[in-house]
Amino acid sequence: MSVYTKLSEPELDTFLSTYLVGQVLHFEGIEAGIENSNYFVTTDQGRFVLTIFEQASVEGLKYCLELMAFLSDCALPSPRPVANTRGEYLNTVKNKPAALVERLGGASIDKPGIEHCRLVGKTLGAMHNAAQSYPATRENERGRAWRAVTAEQIRGHLNTADKSLLDREMVFSKSFDFSYCKRGVVHADLFRDNVLFEGPKLSGLIDFYYAHSGSLIYDLAVTVSDWCFGSDETVFNQPCAKALVQAYSETRVVDTMEIEAWLPSLRAAGLRFWLSRLKDQLFPRHGHLTHIKDPAPFKTVLQHCQLHSDQLQSVWS
Amino acid sequence: MSVYTKLSEPELDTFLSTYLVGQVLHFEGIEAGIENSNYFVTTDQGRFVLTIFEQASVEGLKYCLELMAFLSDCALPSPRPVANTRGEYLNTVKNKPAALVERLGGASIDKPGIEHCRLVGKTLGAMHNAAQSYPATRENERGRAWRAVTAEQIRGHLNTADKSLLDREMVFSKSFDFSYCKRGVVHADLFRDNVLFEGPKLSGLIDFYYAHSGSLIYDLAVTVSDWCFGSDETVFNQPCAKALVQAYSETRVVDTMEIEAWLPSLRAAGLRFWLSRLKDQLFPRHGHLTHIKDPAPFKTVLQHCQLHSDQLQSVWS
Repeated sequence: MSVYTKLSEPELDTFLSTYLVGQVLHFEGIEAGIENSNYFVTTDQGRFVLTIFEQASVEGLKYCLELMAFLSDCALPSPRPVANTRGEYLNTVKNKPAALVERLGGASIDKPGIEHCRLVGKTLGAMHNAAQSYPATRENERGRAWRAVTAEQIRGHLNTADKSLLDREMVFSKSFDFSYCKRGVVHADLFRDNVLFEGPKLSGLIDFYYAHSGSLIYDLAVTVSDWCFGSDETVFNQPCAKALVQAYSETRVVDTMEIEAWLPSLRAAGLRFWLSRLKDQLFPRHGHLTHIKDPAPFKTVLQHCQLHSDQLQSVWS
Repeated sequence: MSVYTKLSEPELDTFLSTYLVGQVLHFEGIEAGIENSNYFVTTDQGRFVLTIFEQASVEGLKYCLELMAFLSDCALPSPRPVANTRGEYLNTVKNKPAALVERLGGASIDKPGIEHCRLVGKTLGAMHNAAQSYPATRENERGRAWRAVTAEQIRGHLNTADKSLLDREMVFSKSFDFSYCKRGVVHADLFRDNVLFEGPKLSGLIDFYYAHSGSLIYDLAVTVSDWCFGSDETVFNQPCAKALVQAYSETRVVDTMEIEAWLPSLRAAGLRFWLSRLKDQLFPRHGHLTHIKDPAPFKTVLQHCQLHSDQLQSVWS
């Protein structure tokens, strides 16, 4: 959530005039995140996040915002989007799509412990279960086609070792067929900065803007690829990963095919984020405040998958 | 090579009358092997093996016999089929397809050492290279369709643990796509009893009757699944496997995709032979002399693949 689009107070007031949320007390840009522009907006009636979408399709955003409303109705800790006076979640500011959502309490955790991981696994499982009845579908915008184009864009900028790692993963990513894995709504970006805790309680899953219809086991792998790699001194935090995976599988039954797909899912997750972060690093977008994340941790995920698959697989036993 | 079809001396004489191989001095059934009926035939002009094919298609057999002639022309140690007076490799005896091939010297090795494995890897690589220009193709008769039918046949006869192992492997076998792996002629059954040694020299690759067009890396995995598992006290003989694989890859360049496909190939090999041996055990065919092989070693291969993938993958490093 870097800030690419700068918003003035009068522009904010115009935008908020189509909502019934009271008078603005405070607003500020949020530096964290990388895709969209985000502002905290506090009014006399509540705390909100205003997001201006920089690259997303209107159809995809409607899917995400309605999903957040749906999950919120299911008592999942996801922020409820606020409808404007025309009853729409999706609005416009400065000719860009924008939305106002409830701001949840709590803060993200940089160095998660076992109990945090357990709660994340459990809540992700609950989200997957609840969303089984969400009727809409959305394609993955960071899927096969995106991967091919992006790899092509960045390949020439890599050193020999990284080129070889990329080639190996691109080749592998074609060979595993996820169509046998159970599908549903996936968050696809449930990283540490997208989960909020209030003390020991998980208070929010946020930033559903990559959510799409995909393999559920891939979503678990995306989550583990961030929560259980590199957040402490060790490359892979096995106790944390085991806690996350076991809590998840106590909440949603994981079948044999999904357990077989675990390593390919971790590699798919590692490749997706390594590629997107390399791209952001090599071809930065201009903005008011921007925050580019380091690709290195996902290179580490991929290398670890290639060398220590037994250890990674053992989280299921 | 069990003996299902018993042949009398007059029947043998009638058969041999269409060949120019001289007078029979000796003949006897061969007990080893499981699919076809085989006889050693010694005449005053040479030593031969007569094979009567119990279940094979004529078209497939022509592919195999011509392949053996082709490889023999390439100076590979494969037995040369003998053409009859009509110039045909494939003949008939007792209304079954039959062929006469050169009998090579040497004997098979039960407990191979590192040097045996190195020679097997090197010769398999040379065979794959040479056969790249073999023009004919043949489908794998022990492929996806056969696997599905056979698993269905035997599943009800297995105990709970074996059923669960079978289900897991059947599910996995669908998910890996070998179409990205380099293809060519594969022997598909290069087990210890199908390689002959004369002292330290590899003198023959025999029994090409499962040869077909397939992934070359699968053929290497089939070979390792027998040569490097269970022939000594340890389950997996890593030094032997490393020697076999390295000698192979010094002879034929193995690409990244094939190295990625190594474990799926070992599991495909383990499943194929576990299934066929279980089937032979549960539904034995009647014959004069029959030799049914134990399915257990391939169950061990599969279990080892599930638990010790890093060790198996490390043969490439």
